[in-house]
Amino acid sequence: MPQVELYDTTLRDGAQMEGLSFSLEDKLKIARKLDELGMHYIEGGYPGSNPKDAEFFQRAREIKWQNARIAAFGSTRKAGGKAETDPNLKALLDGGTSVITMVGKSHLRHVTDILETTAEENLAMVRDSIAYVASQGREAFFDAEHFFDGFYFDPDYALSVIRAADRAGATRIILCDTNGGMVTGRLVEAIRAVRAATSVPLGIHVHNDADLAVANSLAAVEAGVLQVQGCLNGYGERTGNANLASVIANLQLKLDTPVITPAQLAKLTESSNYVAEIANMTAPNNQPYVGVSAFAHKGGLHVAAMMKRDDSYQHIDPALVGNEKRVLVSELSGQRNITAKLAEQGVDIALSPAEARAILEQVKAQEAKGYQYEGAEASFELLVRRSQPGYRAPFELEDFLIIERRRWAPDADKNDIIAEAVVHVKVGDQKLQTAGEGNGPVNALDGAVRKALLEFYPQLSVIKLVDYKVRILDSGAGTGAHVRVLIESTDGTRYWRTVGSSTDIIEASWLALADCLEWWLLNAG
Amino acid sequence: MPQVELYDTTLRDGAQMEGLSFSLEDKLKIARKLDELGMHYIEGGYPGSNPKDAEFFQRAREIKWQNARIAAFGSTRKAGGKAETDPNLKALLDGGTSVITMVGKSHLRHVTDILETTAEENLAMVRDSIAYVASQGREAFFDAEHFFDGFYFDPDYALSVIRAADRAGATRIILCDTNGGMVTGRLVEAIRAVRAATSVPLGIHVHNDADLAVANSLAAVEAGVLQVQGCLNGYGERTGNANLASVIANLQLKLDTPVITPAQLAKLTESSNYVAEIANMTAPNNQPYVGVSAFAHKGGLHVAAMMKRDDSYQHIDPALVGNEKRVLVSELSGQRNITAKLAEQGVDIALSPAEARAILEQVKAQEAKGYQYEGAEASFELLVRRSQPGYRAPFELEDFLIIERRRWAPDADKNDIIAEAVVHVKVGDQKLQTAGEGNGPVNALDGAVRKALLEFYPQLSVIKLVDYKVRILDSGAGTGAHVRVLIESTDGTRYWRTVGSSTDIIEASWLALADCLEWWLLNAG
Repeated sequence: MPQVELYDTTLRDGAQMEGLSFSLEDKLKIARKLDELGMHYIEGGYPGSNPKDAEFFQRAREIKWQNARIAAFGSTRKAGGKAETDPNLKALLDGGTSVITMVGKSHLRHVTDILETTAEENLAMVRDSIAYVASQGREAFFDAEHFFDGFYFDPDYALSVIRAADRAGATRIILCDTNGGMVTGRLVEAIRAVRAATSVPLGIHVHNDADLAVANSLAAVEAGVLQVQGCLNGYGERTGNANLASVIANLQLKLDTPVITPAQLAKLTESSNYVAEIANMTAPNNQPYVGVSAFAHKGGLHVAAMMKRDDSYQHIDPALVGNEKRVLVSELSGQRNITAKLAEQGVDIALSPAEARAILEQVKAQEAKGYQYEGAEASFELLVRRSQPGYRAPFELEDFLIIERRRWAPDADKNDIIAEAVVHVKVGDQKLQTAGEGNGPVNALDGAVRKALLEFYPQLSVIKLVDYKVRILDSGAGTGAHVRVLIESTDGTRYWRTVGSSTDIIEASWLALADCLEWWLLNAG
Repeated sequence: MPQVELYDTTLRDGAQMEGLSFSLEDKLKIARKLDELGMHYIEGGYPGSNPKDAEFFQRAREIKWQNARIAAFGSTRKAGGKAETDPNLKALLDGGTSVITMVGKSHLRHVTDILETTAEENLAMVRDSIAYVASQGREAFFDAEHFFDGFYFDPDYALSVIRAADRAGATRIILCDTNGGMVTGRLVEAIRAVRAATSVPLGIHVHNDADLAVANSLAAVEAGVLQVQGCLNGYGERTGNANLASVIANLQLKLDTPVITPAQLAKLTESSNYVAEIANMTAPNNQPYVGVSAFAHKGGLHVAAMMKRDDSYQHIDPALVGNEKRVLVSELSGQRNITAKLAEQGVDIALSPAEARAILEQVKAQEAKGYQYEGAEASFELLVRRSQPGYRAPFELEDFLIIERRRWAPDADKNDIIAEAVVHVKVGDQKLQTAGEGNGPVNALDGAVRKALLEFYPQLSVIKLVDYKVRILDSGAGTGAHVRVLIESTDGTRYWRTVGSSTDIIEASWLALADCLEWWLLNAG
């Protein structure tokens, strides 16, 4: 048994977060990434409540997991029923996982007022459900919901629920701060009382409502708890669950309690970003350990000190968690950033200090217009190339016309939308006019431009767009706001990213698309 | 002396955050709001390093502060110099504040390797600077930079710096976890050693690099520290400073340590939002206590329990911090989420359980198409109203035509873009055709539709869009991806949010715009 085991519930409790909703494919992708990262348990969902979750467990059985065991989650049997015939327990068993986690009440007032049953019947529900699941050859974990609030409401009853789970054969008893309001001292005091009442290994499951979820998880481990439950990136209902990215890094780097291998820890940042991407949530820049700003230095004095010693203003070496140091562009350090950045990208252009300064000014002017080159290296490279004397672009888009019509189609009994684009493209001295259509104006424009360019550069047909992101910059300006479009493209082997900005989403998209094609023609075509 | 005093450094340390930059007017607005909230000290900036900060102190002297004392921040005198002639100390004194906070080194390796001076000279710098500032009739606070790392590197030297500050007349000695990497146990151990070495009231200043800044601030108070330094919303370099919103709420509501009045605490959410607005930072939905999701309930079982008791899934009454409970509607919802949501929105439609179930199914079907009603209550209300027999929409958009042309304008030496829209709108039996133009297709469509509707509903002219967000849902599908548009609108008094989804950004925008206007006509027009 490891010193501490990790139980990730991103796919179940994490999905309770406002604005988050996972498709079945999303769930499978995230589970694979969590497994790679070294999670010991991955809670896949709630098969009794949701057909999508039931399907997840079917698909999960076909996957060979490297590190994790998959757990299904559900409630103890209904009040007044029998475990053997409970439809929810049946769905849990049908999930086919070797671990089943059951949640039950441990707060007496919740038993009487919410469940509307008796103290005795609740104990029987816990006992019967765990014993039945164990009798079916599965490991039974018991989540004691509202345990801490329940302990301070009626300690004897809360502990009697724990003892019932113990006697029925639970192999883990997880203490939940369901409402997330516990301060650390009271949490630890309650854990001590539980440890005196049972020898079953304990787990901790806390929410972040008091901004203490990570601290409380660590304090629980120090108080002898084996299992930490939480979500990567701290997703979850209300203010979220304990953020496992922070918990893992702290255990491993600060509390001398390794939970994953150093190689897995070095994938922490990438894993956090991947899950955020699939979840379609913006990753907070200032997220500890894994955020893009976590090792970013802005103050002039700090940057000067960092040039003497890397640990002056960093608590760890960022490489340990797969992150990196960044010096933010300022008037003093900027010029060096330009040349360092080109070298980093392998672009063979030697700039004089004066040229580098001129490019820095241009970057700043473009950023004031809404561009951002941090996530669009290919557009940055083009900006530098275009500044060189004698640069000749492989093509030019002379102009475009977009027509889009939405009208009622009585035969189909729905609205029909047609978007068409006409473009004029110039390559060397040759001009070409083409038209295209699509399921939106940008799609139509994309089609028309490619049709034109393929006549000159048939090799362009390998390029595919893999990502298309739109960000409204000054969203308070309503439909007249500035728009930034970021595009990621691939030719099957390499990936590159480009940016466009305008008050018009069509133009912004066009600028990013044009950079995508131009960069590839210069570098591979 | 209060049990605990609050020292806000949003305007100085907070401004080190990536992406954050305050104008002078921003700083004055935020300082006024922090004063209203009941902060005891507001650190205004670094007058020695920055002319904007020097001007701030000039302006601050003309303001009558209700609760706060303004503090100026700077370094101790330069190595080898004299306090009396140090330009930085002069700038600090010129700031005219009654409190001056000076930062100095307490980590021996930083003295030798970064400052490149001797252990003795650093002690003299601390001593001279504090004594000089105190001799000028000001209160001298001493920030011991890197104190905790310094204590574990060389405890004798770190404590000798503290003693030097004490003897020179510092009225507060603030222990800084500058790199933010301390775990709570080690932090408390070091505080105990300092308390044995000095009787000067202590402060705590921690950063969030290990995701423990709030927990460490509370632990420091429990260990006897008087002053907590931090930033509202946890702004600050890298991962930020301790979030004072969470610290205040925890002290007051959890640790029986009032720091502001209950009326001020009830302004915590508004103050947090105001500062985020001025700082032009997106406020995280899941921020503890003050986030828009902090008391939002999504799971069907949770909502059912909340209808029995409000404290089932809330750790405090949200009104205490000026926040409110919200019910979310999503695929995880039960039928009761639908009726609870309508009641919360004050919509007077009584649904039978069968009707509520049918609407829930419709919500799920719409979410599968890319809609999301969690952030778009007005669109949800319309979905319910449209399901009622006899509902008649105040208008219908029959069809639209968009024409956009980008072409080279040789006279202007730039590309000209013209976007025009033609719409057919039906109100009752009347039909109207209008045209509009704008700086993009959505802006043009918006203009044309409003022009048409104003003929029928002149009162619509008060409506303004305050926010327009676009999210690409399946970004891997490139320019053919599904797009979700969220719009927030206001008529000057109320705010409402609507949603539209399509593969076509123009149609998605139109659907959200139409809901915006239709909702207002039903509820206010």
